[in-house]
Amino acid sequence: MVPARLTVVTLGARDLARLRSFYSALGWEVAIEAEDFCAFQLRGALLALFPREKLAADGQARAAAPARGMRGFSLGINVDRPEQVDEAIAAAENAGATVTKPPSAPAEFEGRHAYFADPEENYWEVVYLRGDGPGQQAIDRALRGP
Amino acid sequence: MVPARLTVVTLGARDLARLRSFYSALGWEVAIEAEDFCAFQLRGALLALFPREKLAADGQARAAAPARGMRGFSLGINVDRPEQVDEAIAAAENAGATVTKPPSAPAEFEGRHAYFADPEENYWEVVYLRGDGPGQQAIDRALRGP
Repeated sequence: MVPARLTVVTLGARDLARLRSFYSALGWEVAIEAEDFCAFQLRGALLALFPREKLAADGQARAAAPARGMRGFSLGINVDRPEQVDEAIAAAENAGATVTKPPSAPAEFEGRHAYFADPEENYWEVVYLRGDGPGQQAIDRALRGP
Repeated sequence: MVPARLTVVTLGARDLARLRSFYSALGWEVAIEAEDFCAFQLRGALLALFPREKLAADGQARAAAPARGMRGFSLGINVDRPEQVDEAIAAAENAGATVTKPPSAPAEFEGRHAYFADPEENYWEVVYLRGDGPGQQAIDRALRGP
């Protein structure tokens, strides 16, 4: 059994200083700082930044060739009220994000969501789930335990 | 201000059924299931799986060309005791993971860590931080709030 936790997401940065500035401009606080490394204090999982080549070397992996477009993952920010989707997207755009999907009601679930990309094309979804369905319950358990 | 949360990580799957089987074999429980979508109940952030092309389309983004190697991110599992790193890596390997870095004491911090990759080369670090330094404190705040 592997402990059922996801406590840190580390982004391999091409330009760490630029990414650090971007996430700081979202209003996020740096909790851990070291040479070539920082981590932002979030609820849920921490967001860490580490140079792309060093991250691959740390995992004894080969770094994939840099690529444009979404590289097979997105990061989610669940919010408590639908208007927070719009507020967050406005704030992200203000900080230099590229909004790829403006706030809207999705077809797949009851709620509201939008997507933005950071300056290195890491994608974030801001999402509001209406009601207290299985999705919201799972988020609550993720943050507070069973 | 963007809410300082990271509550879901969605992996864009090339073969969703295979990835779902792999993560189930880690002992992780599916909390949300829909057509072409599932999410595992973890502490911290949920892990969701969604087909790669659909995930990009959902974000109105272009999917990057599939690439071998680490695609600029890793996911972290913080454990409470050093021997849990070894136990988790053995369990992951048993489930079909590729262990790219066996358990060892890292140079950069006090503790123990290791890396594995899932069948679609998404990388996970299992990490034990010794003591109650800023890293462990930040993890505790991420899971329990300020």
